[in-house]
Amino acid sequence: MANATAAGSGVDPLAPEVRAQRVASWGPVPDRAVHLGHALAARFTTVTGERPERSVRTFAEAEARPATIPGSRLDGGARDALARIAAVHTGDDARRAYSLGKSWPDLFAARGTELERACDAVVRPRTEAELEGALAWCVEHDVAVVPVGGGTSVTGGLEPIGRTAAQPVVALDVTGLATCLDIDHVSGVATFQAGVRGPDLERALGSFGLTLGHVPQSFEYSTLGGWIATRSAGQQSLRYGKMEAMTAALRLASPAGVLDVDHLPAHGAGGDLRELVLGSEGTLGIVTRATMRVRRRPDAVRFAAYLFGSFDDARDAARRLVQRGDIKPAMVRVSDAAETAFNVGSSVPKVLAGRLGRGVAQLMGARGGALVLVLSTGTVAEARATERLVDRHMGSLGGRALGGMPAKAWYHGRFRQPYARDVMMDAGLLVDTLETSVSWSRLPALHLQVRAALEGAFGAGRCVVGAHLSHLYHDGASAYFTFLAAPTAERELEEWRAAKRAVHAAIARCGGSASHQHGVGTMHADLYASTVPRLGMEAFRGVQERLDPTNACNPGKLLELPADGQRTVNAVRPVPGAGALDPEGAQRDGS
Amino acid sequence: MANATAAGSGVDPLAPEVRAQRVASWGPVPDRAVHLGHALAARFTTVTGERPERSVRTFAEAEARPATIPGSRLDGGARDALARIAAVHTGDDARRAYSLGKSWPDLFAARGTELERACDAVVRPRTEAELEGALAWCVEHDVAVVPVGGGTSVTGGLEPIGRTAAQPVVALDVTGLATCLDIDHVSGVATFQAGVRGPDLERALGSFGLTLGHVPQSFEYSTLGGWIATRSAGQQSLRYGKMEAMTAALRLASPAGVLDVDHLPAHGAGGDLRELVLGSEGTLGIVTRATMRVRRRPDAVRFAAYLFGSFDDARDAARRLVQRGDIKPAMVRVSDAAETAFNVGSSVPKVLAGRLGRGVAQLMGARGGALVLVLSTGTVAEARATERLVDRHMGSLGGRALGGMPAKAWYHGRFRQPYARDVMMDAGLLVDTLETSVSWSRLPALHLQVRAALEGAFGAGRCVVGAHLSHLYHDGASAYFTFLAAPTAERELEEWRAAKRAVHAAIARCGGSASHQHGVGTMHADLYASTVPRLGMEAFRGVQERLDPTNACNPGKLLELPADGQRTVNAVRPVPGAGALDPEGAQRDGS
Repeated sequence: MANATAAGSGVDPLAPEVRAQRVASWGPVPDRAVHLGHALAARFTTVTGERPERSVRTFAEAEARPATIPGSRLDGGARDALARIAAVHTGDDARRAYSLGKSWPDLFAARGTELERACDAVVRPRTEAELEGALAWCVEHDVAVVPVGGGTSVTGGLEPIGRTAAQPVVALDVTGLATCLDIDHVSGVATFQAGVRGPDLERALGSFGLTLGHVPQSFEYSTLGGWIATRSAGQQSLRYGKMEAMTAALRLASPAGVLDVDHLPAHGAGGDLRELVLGSEGTLGIVTRATMRVRRRPDAVRFAAYLFGSFDDARDAARRLVQRGDIKPAMVRVSDAAETAFNVGSSVPKVLAGRLGRGVAQLMGARGGALVLVLSTGTVAEARATERLVDRHMGSLGGRALGGMPAKAWYHGRFRQPYARDVMMDAGLLVDTLETSVSWSRLPALHLQVRAALEGAFGAGRCVVGAHLSHLYHDGASAYFTFLAAPTAERELEEWRAAKRAVHAAIARCGGSASHQHGVGTMHADLYASTVPRLGMEAFRGVQERLDPTNACNPGKLLELPADGQRTVNAVRPVPGAGALDPEGAQRDGS
Repeated sequence: MANATAAGSGVDPLAPEVRAQRVASWGPVPDRAVHLGHALAARFTTVTGERPERSVRTFAEAEARPATIPGSRLDGGARDALARIAAVHTGDDARRAYSLGKSWPDLFAARGTELERACDAVVRPRTEAELEGALAWCVEHDVAVVPVGGGTSVTGGLEPIGRTAAQPVVALDVTGLATCLDIDHVSGVATFQAGVRGPDLERALGSFGLTLGHVPQSFEYSTLGGWIATRSAGQQSLRYGKMEAMTAALRLASPAGVLDVDHLPAHGAGGDLRELVLGSEGTLGIVTRATMRVRRRPDAVRFAAYLFGSFDDARDAARRLVQRGDIKPAMVRVSDAAETAFNVGSSVPKVLAGRLGRGVAQLMGARGGALVLVLSTGTVAEARATERLVDRHMGSLGGRALGGMPAKAWYHGRFRQPYARDVMMDAGLLVDTLETSVSWSRLPALHLQVRAALEGAFGAGRCVVGAHLSHLYHDGASAYFTFLAAPTAERELEEWRAAKRAVHAAIARCGGSASHQHGVGTMHADLYASTVPRLGMEAFRGVQERLDPTNACNPGKLLELPADGQRTVNAVRPVPGAGALDPEGAQRDGS
């Protein structure tokens, strides 16, 4: 309560972790990501001949004079009442920081001068009781609640929208609940509050020689609760599984009360409650704690890379490896030819030239090939044995071994890409990613059609579309696409929307999921509605009706398209003619 | 329609597979199971000093003059209307055969002279359209539908009960839908209609060198749809996973329409619909087809057995093996000291003496030890490598290697136990099993308390209670209890009920599940209600409301206790003083 500000004072003590992760960017950009961003932007121009222009401000400009936001619609009485339950922030800085996620439209909007929408207050409970109290207050007073963890949603999961455009919205920050509550060494599980971030969770486990093994690209910022709410998958999902495999028990604070799903290793009694909460994206309530399966921290990590003649060959080699079942690497990552060529031609030589040895030289000499990166972990003997089996397998199917360096370079730079995006956006580039999952037999068509959809939207030859498979299963894989384009100034959002529409149609046509790991949010709600059967939606609505009868929790996400004319992405007022790309990036303040 | 009988004719052409699996028994008892049953019954008397009496008839007697059942409550018009949709059987033989499962109370009831309840008709569709039509007819005419696959439920899942005692009940036999619809070799999945039985499914896959790898004890009779509806686990779940891991897609015919859950390897889009249908036990509708993950059939099976000084040591060795993560046997089965001692002292020497070698001699010499059986499968090299790692692991933790024979003997007799139960029941023994799942840290208390509950109910020293862990997970295991007792004649059901009540209280107290693999049915509905959180039940009811709004599908199972005074097990009219146990079994017709 000491933290609560007087209504309208506008001098909120913003939580340091929020200040650090500034609104218009992924986070404070490290030097290496600045270099990478410039290299990729320059490479884009080399490949496409396009020189992007930007119609919004740079990150630094937006940082210096942030976009304006509407005033809070919660009156003083309401703020005071909430402040009696938990810490409340109502100043512009706080409300702005909690009103955008990290999707391209979010970062684009943050570079504008005016946001159309913002949450009306940020509530930051320090205990589960405070959280439950704040939720109950919101439900009682017909205020929508948007749970916020790391704030890294790339699907509009944080959009501050209510059931109607008039309903006030509270962003409920869960990161004040970040305690390790219990480690059950016998059962190999650990219980954490849901607001714990990746590094803190791993530090707590690491002191006991344990690991969760969940390393999504957002690892530095994102939280356990967010991972569960979106069915997150980490880079080593092949070894540790996806969130649904890791989560042994959980607690959900819902408007109807607290739902405690107790720890069971497996069961044969009715439907699975965990699997209803996993992926619910805050629409049923807020995950407040979870019991996670934890493993012994591996002693060794071994790196390998292979170059195949084509993506088809690389994909099939990876598929056969997983389907054999007797080789268990921690990660197999298969880039298509376009991604391989683009990355080899940009980031690798500039940033890492000379350090990567013969394998990289071979890689750079090749054209049209597809790169496969492999991590093998475990005990020293296990990692070595796995690597040997992988090596024999890949070799027998035409993979040329490139040594460890390409995978090692990827590993050490694996959190860098989102920061580099900020730099590329400053250059006027539209840089976005999207992902889906699909069975192996449907994958080739999906790969072709999603690529065609993006090229159709931005113009073939005028955009760069690369893809990789980063999560492999016996019966299929996730496909992760990255696309770079130089949209027409002041038509960026429209062009992005048209591209997404075309991609969604392609995914639905090819039997892909609305998401493999990023969730649905507002951005994929249309795709979700078209890929989940009608009766399935009905079933989920039946659940929602019982747990959140007034639809107070994250309305307009997942199960419903945003109502009452609320757009699925925050509007932006562009700054026309803000400047053309400087390919050398010389003008940019890289600090 | 040619199959439909005139109403009341009583001369139904009973399906041969139903005739083969006779109502009072698990199936036609093979000679070896007769020997085993006698050996176990004799051993029971040796150990406890109890000489069971029976108050019901033998299997053969009940077979010769089956229990009477009430007349069908469906009038001629209704039967004719149903017969226009699908084959209908209304004779006593058919209705009796579909009104009981294979629980101890079911088999006990079948040995009586009169069943209190029976289904009013058996409908056996040949196509999905017929099934959907029959279901729609029942919903429209307020008739309850009990889906029946292999009929092997041991939890009262087939009890012919309606929403009220007055509501007519149709048993809907799914085994007419048993086609292999598709094998997708690239994605490693195969699609079957849900009525396919284990052997037929494996034959279809085997011709392509594939296997599902699902081998529950009921394998010979039970069906894919039943496995999914009860979250079945097979003996090699450690390699192939439980039903929820195997099921990639499914179709549910529900009163609200057909719910088609498409094939995805994994997804990050909302809750998981598969996980709502898995375990739903026919309460949401009827599973009509499913797409299953299939694997390459292993080339080799290797057998190993280890004797530990105590169950604690054996359990911990098994736990550590699973938690290491780098050794992947197909099965690790850990018997407690009581089960080890009882089995060693009965079945092994009589049936297999002389054939099992030094390991078995060691086993028989030991007292108080706990037996661990291990199967390692895969390619020849893989199976051998796995076995070597298991051997080193078990040895390092105090396990004495017994050679392959004990596991091999178990393997070849693994379907025999339920048949032997029929023989033991003829001798007047109460023989039943129960199972649950629990975390490793809660397992010791649960093991003790369930055992204490059973010994408390039947009298310590007057019953035999053994347990084994047959399904192991990183964070826990299933615990499977077998108990033998000589109940007071004519009080068998009451004593059984009292024992179950005590066990259920112990399981709930110790944080176990209502079931790991057998399901809930009517028999565990009270335990389910006490172990699933209230809001979880609410959530499932919300789903049921949308898919089966009038509660036509399997009422009184899973989510609801049977209403309107309907008992949870079929009543039985005993035959007083039917005879005492003949320990040598000389009087029994073993054919």
